[in-house]
Amino acid sequence: MNEFSLIDQYFKSIPSTRSEVVFGIGDDAASLQVPKGMNLLVSTDTLVSEVHFLPQWNAYDIASKAIRANVSDLVAMAALPCCFTLALTLPNNDEQWLASFAKGISDAAALYNMDLIGGDITHGPLAINVTVMGLAPTGQEVRRNGAQAGDIVFVSGALGAAALAVQFLDKKDLLQQHRNELMAKLMHPTPRIDLIELLRKYATSAIDISDGLSADLNHICRASNVGAYLTKDSLPIHPLVVTYLKNKSVDLAISGGDDYELCFTVSPSKVDAFLSELKDRGLGCYKIGQIEKAQGLRIQFSDGHCEDLVPQGYQHF
Amino acid sequence: MNEFSLIDQYFKSIPSTRSEVVFGIGDDAASLQVPKGMNLLVSTDTLVSEVHFLPQWNAYDIASKAIRANVSDLVAMAALPCCFTLALTLPNNDEQWLASFAKGISDAAALYNMDLIGGDITHGPLAINVTVMGLAPTGQEVRRNGAQAGDIVFVSGALGAAALAVQFLDKKDLLQQHRNELMAKLMHPTPRIDLIELLRKYATSAIDISDGLSADLNHICRASNVGAYLTKDSLPIHPLVVTYLKNKSVDLAISGGDDYELCFTVSPSKVDAFLSELKDRGLGCYKIGQIEKAQGLRIQFSDGHCEDLVPQGYQHF
Repeated sequence: MNEFSLIDQYFKSIPSTRSEVVFGIGDDAASLQVPKGMNLLVSTDTLVSEVHFLPQWNAYDIASKAIRANVSDLVAMAALPCCFTLALTLPNNDEQWLASFAKGISDAAALYNMDLIGGDITHGPLAINVTVMGLAPTGQEVRRNGAQAGDIVFVSGALGAAALAVQFLDKKDLLQQHRNELMAKLMHPTPRIDLIELLRKYATSAIDISDGLSADLNHICRASNVGAYLTKDSLPIHPLVVTYLKNKSVDLAISGGDDYELCFTVSPSKVDAFLSELKDRGLGCYKIGQIEKAQGLRIQFSDGHCEDLVPQGYQHF
Repeated sequence: MNEFSLIDQYFKSIPSTRSEVVFGIGDDAASLQVPKGMNLLVSTDTLVSEVHFLPQWNAYDIASKAIRANVSDLVAMAALPCCFTLALTLPNNDEQWLASFAKGISDAAALYNMDLIGGDITHGPLAINVTVMGLAPTGQEVRRNGAQAGDIVFVSGALGAAALAVQFLDKKDLLQQHRNELMAKLMHPTPRIDLIELLRKYATSAIDISDGLSADLNHICRASNVGAYLTKDSLPIHPLVVTYLKNKSVDLAISGGDDYELCFTVSPSKVDAFLSELKDRGLGCYKIGQIEKAQGLRIQFSDGHCEDLVPQGYQHF
């Protein structure tokens, strides 16, 4: 079976629902009509076997992670997902694997109301590239470079579960229920679509936590030419991380990647209004620190003393 | 060195020249403002080592091919290149390789007046994914599905050189000058940007020849629900293919991929005007056959008899 038959069989049947997509799969390129007043946000990520997932994972889970991790990049810009291309490199033509993978893509696309607009299948070591496209009103994208000294630093949820899942992959003495919960966090992260409107309204900068809180907050600080401190006791740590790692849990919450929660900053004058609107929507975020003029990251302990925090996160090389 | 340092060092310095790019590399996503009256055309392709290039090629050449092959997909839709994302999977951090690769990307981007708007570098077996974006006036994209019975089939240039290069990679008794010429065709194909305006004006369907003439014409025929015949004597074959393959050269011209010339159809009533405008621009294309109602492909020989032509092209699996 050739590339075109594979695409026809497994991916062409994924329903198209977006009015912006003039035409999708089936030509040399797809055509998009971006609505007036909107910008198109574009992000690309490749997931490689043994780096971002394990080959023994279900194809469904790999597909789900590929889409969700990419959607998270759009959310971090306060853009709503619109569509994506999928470039799949496969070691062989395993029909069962492909059917399961396509179902994972299809379900994730439906969940985030996205069209699959282009596909490429090549022969080689397993890798999945997704390029996502989303929409934001012109000028309302939230970037990394807008943080100012005095801004309050927030994270959108508890950290460390995905990194704990990676650490515990081979651990035999883990309760099955806990293993399932951690693997779900790793395989099926939840991009914070529910925060997009409030980000547009309140955030001066934002990023999604894919590499680790300290590494990603450092990206904001470098882009904004500022620094930040975090208060140790305020960091939201996933309960299972506390259970299993005890007093080492803060380290994982600071350095662990793959949670895909958001880290963002809000001007101090707007924090009350932000928190009030959050509450009205039944949502919660965590104040974890503050932006400062002094470059670099610091962490403040319960007794008030501060230490430098060296940004740590996933290193590819 | 981590992913971000690599992107900063090698790719962030590639100059941005497009007014449509509101911001590019450096955030979770790039932002595009598509001009009024234009659609955005999107295409993605992954180039895998040992499939689309050999690992011993210069990184510069690999980069050049990745961009050119992708631009060709836009040209086949009659869209002008605008920008692209690059997702690079690398087995190691070889600075010399990366510098050469980045120069290849930068030069090809400049040649086609494109911005690099997003980058991702992951650790794994060498592969290059490019997602290109181009612009076409709304409704003026040239698709695969518009060919009608009676339309004349054209190709934009001589075929077979890239496929001959692949066949002759290991051949020792090839004149160095010929080897250089063939490898240039394989590594640095020339997307036919010069034909975009005329495609918009005259073509009822178009595709670029990446898999092989018969395979790609078959894509047009299937999408348009028609068939076609080719006249054997009219097929433009690259002179070196004739030199080396003699009477087998037609087979390679029909089945060989990677030439990135265009195959397109023009309504018979417009052929004269098309040819006249082509000539005015100092360009030439080749009439090679005609679209017919009867499905499938046929080839007509000098003595007038026809045979069925089974579409042949690159098979990934």
